[in-house]
Amino acid sequence: MATKPNVLILGAGYGGMVTATKITKQLGHNDANVTLVSKHNYHYQTTWLHEPAAGTLHHDRTRMPIDNVIDRNKINFIQDEVVKINKEDNTVSLKENEDVEYDYLVTALGAVPETFGVPGVFEHSFNKWTVNGAREMKEHIEYMFARYHNEEDPKDDLLTFIVAGAGFTGIEFIGELSERVPDLCKEYDIPKNKVKMYVIEAAPTALPGFDPELVEYAMNLLENRGVEFKINMPISEVKEDGVVLKDGEEIKSATVVWATGVRGNPVIEESGFENMRGRVKVDPDLRAPGHDNIFIIGDCSLVINEEADRPYPPTAQIAMQQAETVAKNLRALIKGEQLSEFTPDIKGTVASLGGKEAIGVVGNKKLFGTSANFMKKMIDNRYLWILGGIGLTLKKGKNPF
Amino acid sequence: MATKPNVLILGAGYGGMVTATKITKQLGHNDANVTLVSKHNYHYQTTWLHEPAAGTLHHDRTRMPIDNVIDRNKINFIQDEVVKINKEDNTVSLKENEDVEYDYLVTALGAVPETFGVPGVFEHSFNKWTVNGAREMKEHIEYMFARYHNEEDPKDDLLTFIVAGAGFTGIEFIGELSERVPDLCKEYDIPKNKVKMYVIEAAPTALPGFDPELVEYAMNLLENRGVEFKINMPISEVKEDGVVLKDGEEIKSATVVWATGVRGNPVIEESGFENMRGRVKVDPDLRAPGHDNIFIIGDCSLVINEEADRPYPPTAQIAMQQAETVAKNLRALIKGEQLSEFTPDIKGTVASLGGKEAIGVVGNKKLFGTSANFMKKMIDNRYLWILGGIGLTLKKGKNPF
Repeated sequence: MATKPNVLILGAGYGGMVTATKITKQLGHNDANVTLVSKHNYHYQTTWLHEPAAGTLHHDRTRMPIDNVIDRNKINFIQDEVVKINKEDNTVSLKENEDVEYDYLVTALGAVPETFGVPGVFEHSFNKWTVNGAREMKEHIEYMFARYHNEEDPKDDLLTFIVAGAGFTGIEFIGELSERVPDLCKEYDIPKNKVKMYVIEAAPTALPGFDPELVEYAMNLLENRGVEFKINMPISEVKEDGVVLKDGEEIKSATVVWATGVRGNPVIEESGFENMRGRVKVDPDLRAPGHDNIFIIGDCSLVINEEADRPYPPTAQIAMQQAETVAKNLRALIKGEQLSEFTPDIKGTVASLGGKEAIGVVGNKKLFGTSANFMKKMIDNRYLWILGGIGLTLKKGKNPF
Repeated sequence: MATKPNVLILGAGYGGMVTATKITKQLGHNDANVTLVSKHNYHYQTTWLHEPAAGTLHHDRTRMPIDNVIDRNKINFIQDEVVKINKEDNTVSLKENEDVEYDYLVTALGAVPETFGVPGVFEHSFNKWTVNGAREMKEHIEYMFARYHNEEDPKDDLLTFIVAGAGFTGIEFIGELSERVPDLCKEYDIPKNKVKMYVIEAAPTALPGFDPELVEYAMNLLENRGVEFKINMPISEVKEDGVVLKDGEEIKSATVVWATGVRGNPVIEESGFENMRGRVKVDPDLRAPGHDNIFIIGDCSLVINEEADRPYPPTAQIAMQQAETVAKNLRALIKGEQLSEFTPDIKGTVASLGGKEAIGVVGNKKLFGTSANFMKKMIDNRYLWILGGIGLTLKKGKNPF
């Protein structure tokens, strides 16, 4: 090739960031021009956001300037929002800047909330699992507590908190919030029994796919902290003043947190990829079917778990593993070598429940309480290690002890 | 007297608290039953509230449990709201409890916001200078910053803050807020030039009654921090989305803080005392005209400054001095001695401007900057000393250095 090929990475989440850091180890300066595009000039750990959202961790602990992680001598960075991938002419349209050309594209644009068609979600719920969204939730919750004693006739809905969805995000969020409520009550002179917390789940169980013994452990623990579960109960509408359930019951609340799961970034649909809920069923080497130069990873990709005959849930773990494969495959494509197939290696799953509590499965081993909590913090730290080595881990890591 | 007389003190602000602590030194246990009534089980320093309202001091630093200050072996405490003073039968009606009888009454019920008839103040502004009100303002302000980046089309009115009134409270509040804005901008990733702060005053000058040189110093300092003054400009309406000025201009804002001054507690009017804006022009011995057993002090009392031929502004300084006189006069009444006349002794006035800045007059001396700030903190500490001696001063005082 006369000129160096352009490698374009869209998104600075788990997939995009790990691709960017790994690619500089796979390719030399003369092999390719690498460009990363992201809406924000910082990377954040989506899987930690339930903590700043509930106010148990400062949001700056969950993000880092992109410049602190990637080497700007090796990677060009554009801060902008991706609008569309123009597959036909190998360009990407951005919101503010001119179109960017690529020879090889890595699409790691993450996810958006899935509403399942329930009306009112975007208008009346907190649904943004981003740094901006998390600190809005935190401030909103504190504001509700602060308002209570200033009302002429204080309404209980100010102190009623509804979480829609008992999946990973919903459970981890209510874990943090229920842990914090006693402190909030003290701070704002609120009797603890005034605070109501609900988790509402349409599926027949909380934490679908998790071991039933662990699910029971989690629910008992959260119920002891005052959380009420409504399982097998779809929400039919989110209104300004609460939710309407399928059985007709209305629960009044000034705070509905939407955590029923995600779908792939709308750019996927917008750009004409064949998809299921914004996710593209990628080839074994993680390329989009029919597109030799486009990789899709993370929440926008769909990988089938052959054993279970259904897709793997989109997780940070898979996104990061995909990113390592993509970095290798980009090198292979540019060097004219054989591409590798992606095989997920699910090491385990741990859900934090606030304070020193968690549940999890690592290998075949079930973990409860502090040992699960230890494992959770180690997983969080391991990510920082992959991304930025020991320096980043020491700076941003969590003390597991 | 066969039975001990009942002394009833209404209100646990500056006047009520100092009366309660001083009375136990003037009277022995066998001289009288003393009862204090207050809406909250804590006392707070109203003159410090601009700090927690802007978020520069925790609200717990501005309050203390009443039990920590008064000796409950000597003083009975009822937590309740006063509804009416029934002068004819020497009883006081409370909101929750039964009527309380008194032989001697000390009315120290403080003030409520003065709206000057401007529509929308109670509906659309933050006007409660109480602990509850202050923490609501703080949380509201932070919530506006947190919301900004989550709006589809972020509106500047989220970051526009209007203070109505350039008197003491308004100036001290904007002093704290303008000092904090750079930190808020950093916390929520907001460019500093997006934040707008207005102080709107109907009178022809800010800080009326203050030395013009000091007023100029304060205004210059605050303008350098980004505050815009509109002086000699009445507000004709407060709306949900901002204010309308007398000249027709509308300023859009999600946060209007009302600080145009106060009037006496409505219980005064409700109870049939002759009054001006809720304040009773008391006799020289601080009794209500025509009522030998009712003292009125603090914001509900009106004392004429003979030199200036107008009322003294209601301040903590005067309320505390009145309380000392009332404690002596209660003793005199019970013991059948001669009552004393109240003479205010204005030692000086200092207004804080946030950070290490303040302005003030002490005696004939003008103070600027750090020396005024030092004096302000000494005044705050001196009050704690009067109320609770060295223990309370060390526990709750401010470090002037």
